[in-house]
Amino acid sequence: MLDAVTPGRSEAQPAGTDGAAGLEGTEGRVRPVIEDVQPVVDDGRFPAKRELGDEVVVEADVFADGHDETACELRWRHEDAPGWQSVTMSALDNDRWRSSFVVSELGTYLFCIQAAVDRFATWRRDLARRIEADQNVAVELLVGAGLLEHIAARAHRSDRRLLADTADRLRSSSPATAAGTAAIVELLGAPDLVAAASRYPDPETTVCSSDFSVTVDRSRARFGSWYEMFPRSASPLAGQHGTLLDAASRLPYVSSLGFDVLYLPPIHPIGVTNRKGRDGAPSKSRDDPGSPWAIGSAAGGHTAVHPDLGTVADVARLVEAAGELGMEVALDLALQCSPDHPWVAEHPDWFRSLPDGTIRYAENPPKRYEDIYPIDFDTADWQSLWEEIERVVRFWISHGIKIFRVDNPHTKPLRFWEWLISSVRSDHTDVIFLSEAFTRPKLMHRLAKLGFTQSYTYFTWRTSKWELESYLRELHTPPVSDFLRPNLWPNTPDILTEQLQTGGRATFMSRLVLAATLASSYGIYGPAYELQESRPRSSGSEEYLHSEKYELRHWDIDDPKSLSPFITTVNQARRDNPALQHDRNLEFHGVDNEQLVVYSRRWTGAHSDRTRTRPEANTVLVVVNLDPLYTQSGWVDLDLTQLGLDESAPYTVCDAFTGSRYEWRGSRNYVSLDPSIVPAHIFRVEPPGQGGEPQTKDPRNTDPRSKDPAR
Amino acid sequence: MLDAVTPGRSEAQPAGTDGAAGLEGTEGRVRPVIEDVQPVVDDGRFPAKRELGDEVVVEADVFADGHDETACELRWRHEDAPGWQSVTMSALDNDRWRSSFVVSELGTYLFCIQAAVDRFATWRRDLARRIEADQNVAVELLVGAGLLEHIAARAHRSDRRLLADTADRLRSSSPATAAGTAAIVELLGAPDLVAAASRYPDPETTVCSSDFSVTVDRSRARFGSWYEMFPRSASPLAGQHGTLLDAASRLPYVSSLGFDVLYLPPIHPIGVTNRKGRDGAPSKSRDDPGSPWAIGSAAGGHTAVHPDLGTVADVARLVEAAGELGMEVALDLALQCSPDHPWVAEHPDWFRSLPDGTIRYAENPPKRYEDIYPIDFDTADWQSLWEEIERVVRFWISHGIKIFRVDNPHTKPLRFWEWLISSVRSDHTDVIFLSEAFTRPKLMHRLAKLGFTQSYTYFTWRTSKWELESYLRELHTPPVSDFLRPNLWPNTPDILTEQLQTGGRATFMSRLVLAATLASSYGIYGPAYELQESRPRSSGSEEYLHSEKYELRHWDIDDPKSLSPFITTVNQARRDNPALQHDRNLEFHGVDNEQLVVYSRRWTGAHSDRTRTRPEANTVLVVVNLDPLYTQSGWVDLDLTQLGLDESAPYTVCDAFTGSRYEWRGSRNYVSLDPSIVPAHIFRVEPPGQGGEPQTKDPRNTDPRSKDPAR
Repeated sequence: MLDAVTPGRSEAQPAGTDGAAGLEGTEGRVRPVIEDVQPVVDDGRFPAKRELGDEVVVEADVFADGHDETACELRWRHEDAPGWQSVTMSALDNDRWRSSFVVSELGTYLFCIQAAVDRFATWRRDLARRIEADQNVAVELLVGAGLLEHIAARAHRSDRRLLADTADRLRSSSPATAAGTAAIVELLGAPDLVAAASRYPDPETTVCSSDFSVTVDRSRARFGSWYEMFPRSASPLAGQHGTLLDAASRLPYVSSLGFDVLYLPPIHPIGVTNRKGRDGAPSKSRDDPGSPWAIGSAAGGHTAVHPDLGTVADVARLVEAAGELGMEVALDLALQCSPDHPWVAEHPDWFRSLPDGTIRYAENPPKRYEDIYPIDFDTADWQSLWEEIERVVRFWISHGIKIFRVDNPHTKPLRFWEWLISSVRSDHTDVIFLSEAFTRPKLMHRLAKLGFTQSYTYFTWRTSKWELESYLRELHTPPVSDFLRPNLWPNTPDILTEQLQTGGRATFMSRLVLAATLASSYGIYGPAYELQESRPRSSGSEEYLHSEKYELRHWDIDDPKSLSPFITTVNQARRDNPALQHDRNLEFHGVDNEQLVVYSRRWTGAHSDRTRTRPEANTVLVVVNLDPLYTQSGWVDLDLTQLGLDESAPYTVCDAFTGSRYEWRGSRNYVSLDPSIVPAHIFRVEPPGQGGEPQTKDPRNTDPRSKDPAR
Repeated sequence: MLDAVTPGRSEAQPAGTDGAAGLEGTEGRVRPVIEDVQPVVDDGRFPAKRELGDEVVVEADVFADGHDETACELRWRHEDAPGWQSVTMSALDNDRWRSSFVVSELGTYLFCIQAAVDRFATWRRDLARRIEADQNVAVELLVGAGLLEHIAARAHRSDRRLLADTADRLRSSSPATAAGTAAIVELLGAPDLVAAASRYPDPETTVCSSDFSVTVDRSRARFGSWYEMFPRSASPLAGQHGTLLDAASRLPYVSSLGFDVLYLPPIHPIGVTNRKGRDGAPSKSRDDPGSPWAIGSAAGGHTAVHPDLGTVADVARLVEAAGELGMEVALDLALQCSPDHPWVAEHPDWFRSLPDGTIRYAENPPKRYEDIYPIDFDTADWQSLWEEIERVVRFWISHGIKIFRVDNPHTKPLRFWEWLISSVRSDHTDVIFLSEAFTRPKLMHRLAKLGFTQSYTYFTWRTSKWELESYLRELHTPPVSDFLRPNLWPNTPDILTEQLQTGGRATFMSRLVLAATLASSYGIYGPAYELQESRPRSSGSEEYLHSEKYELRHWDIDDPKSLSPFITTVNQARRDNPALQHDRNLEFHGVDNEQLVVYSRRWTGAHSDRTRTRPEANTVLVVVNLDPLYTQSGWVDLDLTQLGLDESAPYTVCDAFTGSRYEWRGSRNYVSLDPSIVPAHIFRVEPPGQGGEPQTKDPRNTDPRSKDPAR
């Protein structure tokens, strides 16, 4: 409903706080205060993040002096909408209030809270107490009539008559008899009257919070399965440079695994000067293709496509082919240049010159990266630089790209990103920026706050039970969950973790299940992942041996040892269960084995299926064996409340890998996972009366060995 | 030092956050950000509280993109001072920075944080790494020279020469030889150069936090022992109405007990209409003196003194007599009126009229308090009302009163208090307001935030070990400890707790020790407390039987059963130990007995003795037996780090009650407390080499029975 109430006075301008100054311009009769509004990031400096269709639950502390009743309203609007909508907030315990609104448009919503002392509600409450105590309320009825008449005077025409009529009836009521009193109680309790009387708080004494903002993204911002792939390795012929069209031919495979986003490392021309060769050593061969992150050559820079990969038009073709499979293509935005990038000649002042006339290479002293010049954002010409980068982003948007994976954003100014993302999204609200910042926690958080849609995380190196529990709990809990959407990666072309080097197939499986079920967005670098590539460049290094960063690889995606069936099952479970598509919903459960980690995701929100919105609950329970070598068993100790279950009734858990159904009861149940088969359960939890019949009632018989479709 | 640096750009105005708007007026080269500054209350909406002489420790998260060195400065000034002072902040872990400043004037201080990327420090750090790796640094020296020349150009004359000379030497240095390199390292490591080079961050790229404020009060705001007393009961003759001069005669007694603040319930004329009689019943006798909180009669209102108590001049005499004993007098500010108050006739619109022409009594429906009219702060004439109340406060200030205990502030508008306190303190920075609000937690907190100097707390009803530990920990920890100064009361004229009704002498002793040692301000309502008055008006009531609120009492302060020697000892321990005079310093320790509570207070700040400031540590360890009936013993498990001790060396604890000294060792020590003697230890903890020799080395022999001076 459109709200006609004049916004009240701002809480940010209290009366006479400027010391001995007079009371001019202040209003001393504003009594409520509003504190600790949520969801709010850094006191409103940044927006909170939500997705299309979300119910934004807003809470605040609202209270006034004394014991009067307070009325509290949540107001919101899309920033482009002309007027506010509003809803009455409900009081929880301890002066906390709550309500919510649903976001149905992309872009920025504003919300605020408005509070007023409700004199009529206070009077009605007190009258009930007086009647209860058999006091004479004759005079009180006249007081109430007067209050109603005041409200009627500022009410909308549609309510004025009811308010005035009720006032008249109070004036003529006879509370001396039991019947008279009963009539008054009935009169005052009528829902229409209660609603009408509360609809018009006195604007003079109403207080408003600041406006706070919520950024609303499309659901892909929260839920997506990413597949990173080097198109130059996508040729069906070994040793031949792959193209974007080869990558398009690989799309049905990637889609069949259940991925939604195909992410390509930089596709631009690669510099020749100081080109890196195999495993990052200086190139010794003209055949070395160079690192895709050494961007720019005589063939062009950030808006060009490497001639061996194809053309800009091929990008649009790839995007189209992906779209036909329900997939999207993400490009890499890596703001650095090879010495041969056109910008070096056109804008030498965008780079840092040395007194000897050369340009400074990328460095981490004493290390040097001679094939790359970092851009100098401290340049006096920073405005042109920023605008040129925005032009690059808009160029690719104009060719169908809606997702950018941003390389090392933490080494470029924070203000630049805040401006760039805001500027691009001002007319492209559906564009997604993924921050690839593996750096200090506060810097990673700031990048998320200032506008990055999603963020890489430390998940990659969180391997022990304690690490996983504490870190993922942080990611699913405010304040972090209000501004940072995690995207979990078990590997990347830069990171072959020690665990993947040594853990074998079981570790590739368990890390994939963890990434795919601990948060709603995850990704893998393939085909290295499904083919379990585990050889490091050298002992102690996280670099891949024969890294695709420096050479073409040929992958046998049909290798029978591939984990592709397993990955397909996991991604299907993600698609089947809304609980795995939402955030802020992770709970860990107890288990008497340190090698087992047990957690649930539960979703009870509205499920929009385009035609109608129906409430539906979905709960997933995951058990992962962290030990790649041995079967681990234990008794889980489930928090049934978190699972939406009660103590008494049995319930069914259905495993995604085997399809087996087990009847469980109560909080303690037995699990056993053999890593040589499948090191995880992904159970859908079905309360009594939901889903099919369990296949077995033996709680110990959860061994998925015989029916594992993932093998 | 006065700081000449031009304030940098505000963090609150980031570049281009207004979406697609242009880059006009922004500065894109500002790279650091400043987050989570402490101490800050509600993001700066309210000041933090500190006391004269305090070291205000300021922390913040400060970081920039990339890996450059950041320079961070804390700036502060008294609001009346013309310029900022500043100090360099130190980096802690995880992008957290810290520094501090000392507050030496009453009133409001402002502070902010300024941060810049330090290109010269970054260069120096990288140069060291290059030299370490034996790289050729010839060109780097020219880079460094250029950076120094840039700094020199904006430096103060006193630094310019050093900076320019160093640049020259870098230009002419020869790094080719080991000796040449060593000379460069020595040149660049000179503290004078490091300091001079860091003193002039580029103002164009410097960022400033908002200004935050700290209210500085005199030390009485934090540390004081209060004694509440009805002057009308202070006559030496039973049955005779006491006077303010009788109260003055009682001062030496109160002072000898160790109290600093004499607090008087309202001393104004008491209304006649609907006067309350004994135990709050309607008065049936002309002799009933009425409730002092039913303020106002034909003899005057809030600026008059009850004729039976004396005159306004007597107030000044009482204040003077107190001052001679090092004490102060606190008055009650109770904003309500008897029906006979002059305001009722002069300002009928300050009260709420009923349709029958009467004025509404104070009520909590269905209860009525017919001897009191509440003031209607919703009056249209609120400005005159506010100003009249301010006049009352200023009237008593002009008669020597510097402390106001405010009755039920939570039933008057929050904006009114914020204005009143700010207005009064704008020219009376030494005035203290104690909030007597026993209400919901967020309302109590808001009153503290908006300006009340001190606050009553829930301590009165926190009796179990768990309650005491969790509540007092909250009070000693930010954010609460930054805005709320607790004043702990085991009893008041309104509150005789069930525990005091039933627990006997031991409970009066243990509650006093808890109140006096768990926070730096505490108070008792006497002589009821030291004489252990414990009779309730009725079973289940917290009202005193024969409450002084409604009748005169005659107290035998020389009763040999009085706790006055015990109280004297406790107050002396408070005076002897700075740790008991500071807040934010409470730690609880383990003990294997649920009836024992063990805690320490430690103070390591600067101790100002007027002539010099010397660092000094003081640690107090308190053990209280909560069981009033039985001896309770146990092994304490001390956190030695919190006590400033190490594992290896023995240390001495000296008991305030017995003077006994015990040598303890390590964290586990035995205690035993017999409530029929003294239910508490107040130990001063003396590290090795401090204090006298221990009297006993038997750790079990801590029974204070034989030497209790408090009996």
